[in-house]
Amino acid sequence: MSDQKLKVIPLGGLGEFGMNCMAIRYGDDIIVVDAGMMFPDAELLGVDIVTPDFAYLEENKEFVRALVLTHGHEDHIGGIPFLLSQLNIPIYGTAFTLALVERRLEEHEMLDEARLHRVKPGQKIELGPFHVEFVHVTHSIVSCVALAITTPLGVIIHTGDFKVDPTPTDNVLFDLHTLAEYGKRGVLLLLSDSTNVDRPGYTASERAVLPRFEEIFNRAERRVVVACFSSSIHRLQQILDLAATVGRKVAFIGRSMLSATEIAHNLGLLTIPDNLLLRPQDIMSVAPHKVVCVVSGTQGEPMSAMSRVAVDNHKSLSLERGDVVVHSARIIPGNEKAIGRMMNHIARRGAEVVAGSMNPPIHVSGHGSQEELKLLLNLIRPRYFVPIHGEYWQMSKHAALASHLRSYGLEDTFILETGQTLEIDRHGARKGEKVTVGRICIDSGSIDEIVEDMVIRDRRHLSEDGFVIPIIAIDKHTGKCEGLPEIVSRGFVSMEERSELMASARQVVLRTLETSSNEERTDWGVMQEKIRADLKRFLNKQTQRRPLIMPVILEV
Amino acid sequence: MSDQKLKVIPLGGLGEFGMNCMAIRYGDDIIVVDAGMMFPDAELLGVDIVTPDFAYLEENKEFVRALVLTHGHEDHIGGIPFLLSQLNIPIYGTAFTLALVERRLEEHEMLDEARLHRVKPGQKIELGPFHVEFVHVTHSIVSCVALAITTPLGVIIHTGDFKVDPTPTDNVLFDLHTLAEYGKRGVLLLLSDSTNVDRPGYTASERAVLPRFEEIFNRAERRVVVACFSSSIHRLQQILDLAATVGRKVAFIGRSMLSATEIAHNLGLLTIPDNLLLRPQDIMSVAPHKVVCVVSGTQGEPMSAMSRVAVDNHKSLSLERGDVVVHSARIIPGNEKAIGRMMNHIARRGAEVVAGSMNPPIHVSGHGSQEELKLLLNLIRPRYFVPIHGEYWQMSKHAALASHLRSYGLEDTFILETGQTLEIDRHGARKGEKVTVGRICIDSGSIDEIVEDMVIRDRRHLSEDGFVIPIIAIDKHTGKCEGLPEIVSRGFVSMEERSELMASARQVVLRTLETSSNEERTDWGVMQEKIRADLKRFLNKQTQRRPLIMPVILEV
Repeated sequence: MSDQKLKVIPLGGLGEFGMNCMAIRYGDDIIVVDAGMMFPDAELLGVDIVTPDFAYLEENKEFVRALVLTHGHEDHIGGIPFLLSQLNIPIYGTAFTLALVERRLEEHEMLDEARLHRVKPGQKIELGPFHVEFVHVTHSIVSCVALAITTPLGVIIHTGDFKVDPTPTDNVLFDLHTLAEYGKRGVLLLLSDSTNVDRPGYTASERAVLPRFEEIFNRAERRVVVACFSSSIHRLQQILDLAATVGRKVAFIGRSMLSATEIAHNLGLLTIPDNLLLRPQDIMSVAPHKVVCVVSGTQGEPMSAMSRVAVDNHKSLSLERGDVVVHSARIIPGNEKAIGRMMNHIARRGAEVVAGSMNPPIHVSGHGSQEELKLLLNLIRPRYFVPIHGEYWQMSKHAALASHLRSYGLEDTFILETGQTLEIDRHGARKGEKVTVGRICIDSGSIDEIVEDMVIRDRRHLSEDGFVIPIIAIDKHTGKCEGLPEIVSRGFVSMEERSELMASARQVVLRTLETSSNEERTDWGVMQEKIRADLKRFLNKQTQRRPLIMPVILEV
Repeated sequence: MSDQKLKVIPLGGLGEFGMNCMAIRYGDDIIVVDAGMMFPDAELLGVDIVTPDFAYLEENKEFVRALVLTHGHEDHIGGIPFLLSQLNIPIYGTAFTLALVERRLEEHEMLDEARLHRVKPGQKIELGPFHVEFVHVTHSIVSCVALAITTPLGVIIHTGDFKVDPTPTDNVLFDLHTLAEYGKRGVLLLLSDSTNVDRPGYTASERAVLPRFEEIFNRAERRVVVACFSSSIHRLQQILDLAATVGRKVAFIGRSMLSATEIAHNLGLLTIPDNLLLRPQDIMSVAPHKVVCVVSGTQGEPMSAMSRVAVDNHKSLSLERGDVVVHSARIIPGNEKAIGRMMNHIARRGAEVVAGSMNPPIHVSGHGSQEELKLLLNLIRPRYFVPIHGEYWQMSKHAALASHLRSYGLEDTFILETGQTLEIDRHGARKGEKVTVGRICIDSGSIDEIVEDMVIRDRRHLSEDGFVIPIIAIDKHTGKCEGLPEIVSRGFVSMEERSELMASARQVVLRTLETSSNEERTDWGVMQEKIRADLKRFLNKQTQRRPLIMPVILEV
């Protein structure tokens, strides 16, 4: 047995929701599993996206062998451009996952330098002392894998995100056999997804949504508009097939929806029946009862296609009385109000909203419930168990779920939070040192300036570096701005420059308010985003600086 | 038939969640149904509570005959002190509802002048041209009524909040017979609760939680701590009875929990077995497996008893490994993150968290699901229907639920939003004029100054009247404040006064930060509340003014 230590180093996603990233180190070799992002809390006004602080990896640059990806959701791949800007390591993932990564890197003009290596489920690769096998699992996105990482001290199983779907829409079953094999031979450490640990029983199969869509597609007398995640290829396939059956044409709307479906189609993961697709610009000229629109923007994001459709501000689709709008996605905690506002706009247009829990369901989760988590635990029977992907209370519940395995060789369970390492050597496992972690708040900025502009860490001492707070008092019921907008700024430009600049900035904000529709004006999310975008452009032009802009809209 | 018009004037709660208030006017006579409040959005930083704008009632002061209450939840009675300060009208409600109103009025030193009239289900009262019958309904609070309001133009049924619980814990059944009787004789207008319109089927009976509590009370090896709404008397009764059966003593913790249980006990609505109660100060000296604590604060409110227990900052209860903490309440939209943080704190203390959906359930809703809403619609078969208590999309779904009644005399359904009146005369019903409505943001202030201090309407032009924004940059992982806190203020004190005052205010904020525990410092909700409270005290003392204080905590 080896003298070196094996270290598990969570850099994101343990004790917090999103931005999953985990480093695994053996001696002087490191591999990284996933590099996700999260969307900021309402509390982080003015921030577009949040990634883990990759300082640990940068400090150990010369030891990092590769980034290995489990699947293509943003909370697993969204941080890659920011990681690669710090250390350009090779990346391993399945075809669909890499295609989504390519899209992201292309946006950031980083694709040329990237070293992407496509792998298939069942394939094994060698990364220094690590042998990594990719094991197919079922989840809400296609081409999703767990990782079996053989190290000199034993095998680590990292589940990625998963559910155990007994009847996946593509008929490719969860590879229970391979995991069972590893379990039989002995697994040192299991890292398993805790997202749905509070749900009893089994998560329903992705196919469970079909009867609900059948019911809606058949009864709707006019257009059916489905809002769903663009990466839910299984769901899109079911919608396409069903539309073909009932004789409706399908239009994809929204940038991410168009690109995700194109990618999946090119890879042969999405089959589009002939003559089924409708171009967005043709939607309004086809008989309404012959149309299904599939739209991105399920979380009430102010600038998403669905939000724009809801306030009747989309060039291709205008909702009408009798249309049915289906919200076929989970509500990410924190987005309830924004989604509620979007639904109100839709209902005001006279369209029916289908959302929430119902039987048959309109949405099923991609994460396993308690029985599936126990199934994995029982198959793998690890010596050590670390719950991952969840808030503290979820990981803590997941830990409790494993307690019956004590009599099957489970020696210990550790609840780690991001930054808390686990050390394993020949004597066993224990909590190790804490490493530097944190969140990096990114103002997405322009493509050219990612590296210097993306990090708001430099703005740590707010009194010295720069922020602008436009504060607008809006009368909720008239939608009118009360008085001139106030703009509060600190550390942005000198006192002398400020008063003139702020006077002009007020006019910019005022113009944004005046040129917005009444409906937009009653939706704070939309207004905050518009004000921020306009002010950002103006201030950048005037000063070549990019202060943190945090519009505050006060209701009066 | 009469020549006068009947007007339905929604002043709150239609197209928005909370602060329910509805005026009904016939000629020159007005009655008001409920006067609720809502807790502010995260977007309304610095505001304690929000009530409807009662301007319409104040303008028509001489015509307002009475306020009639359906039940004692805050979203139905919380606005009463603010309404009464504008017009001191008589109030009618059941004993428990009035007792909760009395508590509120006492806090505001307004009880002496209040004219409270206790009514019983089945009782009828005359208020000018209105004859109001109180009809017992089942809901999550006791002593809950619907209103049958007979007017010269016909009967209006206002359901209040309800579910149709077939097996209520107090065995007092929903009075379906009376409503059926009205339905048979003919109802002009139904106003019905839309809260759970997106839920299919029936809401489970309140008794459905008992098996879950049995399971927990029996298996828990140490303390059981239950967080629930203090007004959920049915649930408290079940907890008390079960505790007596299994031999655990019960301690009530939290100001509202203590007062609500005292009120219910005094009215004979809560039966407390002999020798069952444990004083909070004795909790820690009784064997843990013999204790149940029932604690107020289910929504992660930073200053609530449960939040303080979670961060180990409560004088009577300290959580220990092996304790079980039960969250037996709904999550009010917008509070997900705060509740999640509270659960993380609890899990970090080593206690088990029982929360979320499970079977048997740990919480059941007090609002009727689709089948119950249809049952009410079918019993009452109104000529006109107006969904109430919900966001626009919920009311719109509720309207659709009534469509089958067209063949049973339903002539029209109206989706009204707050401020949009409905007019009925001998020719029928139609949307009428819009009246002035809005939200009044209240900074709860001191008891002496409610009337002048409570209304932030005076602060409409923010650039002229006063607000203070302390901005604190906190390193999330160390919990340390980065640099001195910044304080942004406008319209509060003159430039000359400001710099000195703000320098001192920074020290106040800094002191608040330094004297907080590490755990408090990582919980933004707690910190914002503490900073606000301390700064408010300081600024009020220095300037005798009460600016709107909005702490902004930035993670760096």
